[in-house]
Amino acid sequence: MPSKEATVAVLGATGAVGEQILRNLERRSFPVKELRLLASSRSAGKKVRFKGEEVEVQQASPEAFKGVDIALFSAGGSVSEAFAPEAVKRGAVVVDNTNAFRMDPKVPLIVPEVNAAEIGNHQGIIANPNCSTIQMVVALKPLYDRFGLDRVIVSTYQAVSGSGAAAMEELWEQSRSALEGKEAVKEIMPVGKLPRHYQIAFNAIPQCDVAEENGFTLEEMKMVRETKKIFGDDSIGVTATCVRVPVSRGHSESVYVELERDFQLEEVREAFQQTEGIILQDDLHRQVYPMPLEAAGRDEVFVGRVRKDTVHPRGLNFWVVADNLLKGAATNAVQIAEHLV
Amino acid sequence: MPSKEATVAVLGATGAVGEQILRNLERRSFPVKELRLLASSRSAGKKVRFKGEEVEVQQASPEAFKGVDIALFSAGGSVSEAFAPEAVKRGAVVVDNTNAFRMDPKVPLIVPEVNAAEIGNHQGIIANPNCSTIQMVVALKPLYDRFGLDRVIVSTYQAVSGSGAAAMEELWEQSRSALEGKEAVKEIMPVGKLPRHYQIAFNAIPQCDVAEENGFTLEEMKMVRETKKIFGDDSIGVTATCVRVPVSRGHSESVYVELERDFQLEEVREAFQQTEGIILQDDLHRQVYPMPLEAAGRDEVFVGRVRKDTVHPRGLNFWVVADNLLKGAATNAVQIAEHLV
Repeated sequence: MPSKEATVAVLGATGAVGEQILRNLERRSFPVKELRLLASSRSAGKKVRFKGEEVEVQQASPEAFKGVDIALFSAGGSVSEAFAPEAVKRGAVVVDNTNAFRMDPKVPLIVPEVNAAEIGNHQGIIANPNCSTIQMVVALKPLYDRFGLDRVIVSTYQAVSGSGAAAMEELWEQSRSALEGKEAVKEIMPVGKLPRHYQIAFNAIPQCDVAEENGFTLEEMKMVRETKKIFGDDSIGVTATCVRVPVSRGHSESVYVELERDFQLEEVREAFQQTEGIILQDDLHRQVYPMPLEAAGRDEVFVGRVRKDTVHPRGLNFWVVADNLLKGAATNAVQIAEHLV
Repeated sequence: MPSKEATVAVLGATGAVGEQILRNLERRSFPVKELRLLASSRSAGKKVRFKGEEVEVQQASPEAFKGVDIALFSAGGSVSEAFAPEAVKRGAVVVDNTNAFRMDPKVPLIVPEVNAAEIGNHQGIIANPNCSTIQMVVALKPLYDRFGLDRVIVSTYQAVSGSGAAAMEELWEQSRSALEGKEAVKEIMPVGKLPRHYQIAFNAIPQCDVAEENGFTLEEMKMVRETKKIFGDDSIGVTATCVRVPVSRGHSESVYVELERDFQLEEVREAFQQTEGIILQDDLHRQVYPMPLEAAGRDEVFVGRVRKDTVHPRGLNFWVVADNLLKGAATNAVQIAEHLV
């Protein structure tokens, strides 16, 4: 339980994640002394509800962070780069939800279920990992602890909300167009800033971020690099294929791991079951397994389809689902903030 | 090129695959002497267009196969079990698109690009593999030949048309309901005959067939067993996770393989490029990769996102897409029939 009240700023308050941060602060009864909602000039002046009251959104500026204890950032990487140092200079601790500082060696990259102990090492900025990484490492943690973790091969089924509220709207509109037999408008997916856009409705797009030199996407390499950093263990081999699917909220992941030690399937199930933050939904014979429609709106990470590999003696397969806007972003950020107060 | 004309029967002529078989026979100018369209009593009397003429669907019966040279079956496993021996008894060669005979040692399991030479070994029945297997083995074949194939880890993104025309309609209707804020009707997905049905629209369901004892689904184990049989090589290790996604037509697969010999990425690209039946769409930097919406209606197997693994020295990742009703079913069946005439 948090022990003292804090002045909290939310930068990007009107975005898809920002909105979920506010709902999380309410739901988890975060001890907010004062709330400052910050955004670009475009959103300044808007009113947003918090605990039954209307709070006006202010334009972000360095001065707006004066007196702020905790600043939760989710307004894009360049905004974080501009304002995080200003907020820190004024005494705030920044919990940043963008990719700007994640791999900075001075910045702890935190998933509380995995490495809460690192939170204290911050120098003003704490990074929230990428959504697809967070839910995977929560599921990997009990395996890492009990059996050791050699390597991971993951294929993702990512919801469009990872690209923001406008992408959710695009999926909606494209679906409507397809049902009406009209040509879909394609403006955002797969990556807003790239030149080519494809229909995501009734499609699957094997690209969730820009390309890297090695033929992987940045999204895929985030899963590789962030997993090593969060566990503080460069020996974990991660291979990722990140794919966007026509789901609004909730990322799914097909995960194959090779563990270091032999295991019984029941031990693995028990390890998942005993882990705070994981809900095991694993009974294929009764058709029980996680699905994004069911995970949407929930804070936990859902694990199912747990089965011993038939090829590798220490291979294990499972399926992980979580709400990418909640545990994949807002919930994780607010959990970090809870550790700070 | 086919050398003689054949009397062809299509059993299941009014189904999603049956319809595509007819379109394929037309498009590929299959030398049809006489066409018999067969179905259950429910569909008997319906008229179906073929080469500009209306052909009446007859109720399937043993006698209906008299004089038939080639019978293309896609009306479900129990129908195949009942009628295939009858058709064979009357001199027909059956190309069966169901799971009924695939693992029967007396029945060749054929993907012409991989094992056309086995076609001659039939004793009246030739099996068409499962849709998700076909497109994968077409992509694996050039790798198997040039570099040897140790193991495969695949996660699928399967279209609802794999469950037939009614499932396509269900996705459509559920999407409409979701857009209108109404409760979706759930009657088919993930497996019609199982007790629980889930919404597939805007969801992902990690089950495409019934459960097996080992915690995998039958769909997943089909990929394991059929791959070994098609290559005639039990040493290939296959691990599959089969997932249904809200796509109407076109299965996608995220494939990781470990090859037996060292390779250069360019050699792999060249091997894909030189393989008949494969179209390489592989330029991530220019956002070129296969997608189901683009592959729908095409006969080929599309390969992209080809990249060397960063963990295993002989690991390779790629993405395979094909129209599950065409190369995954009808096209492959008609290709087999072409080898017969």
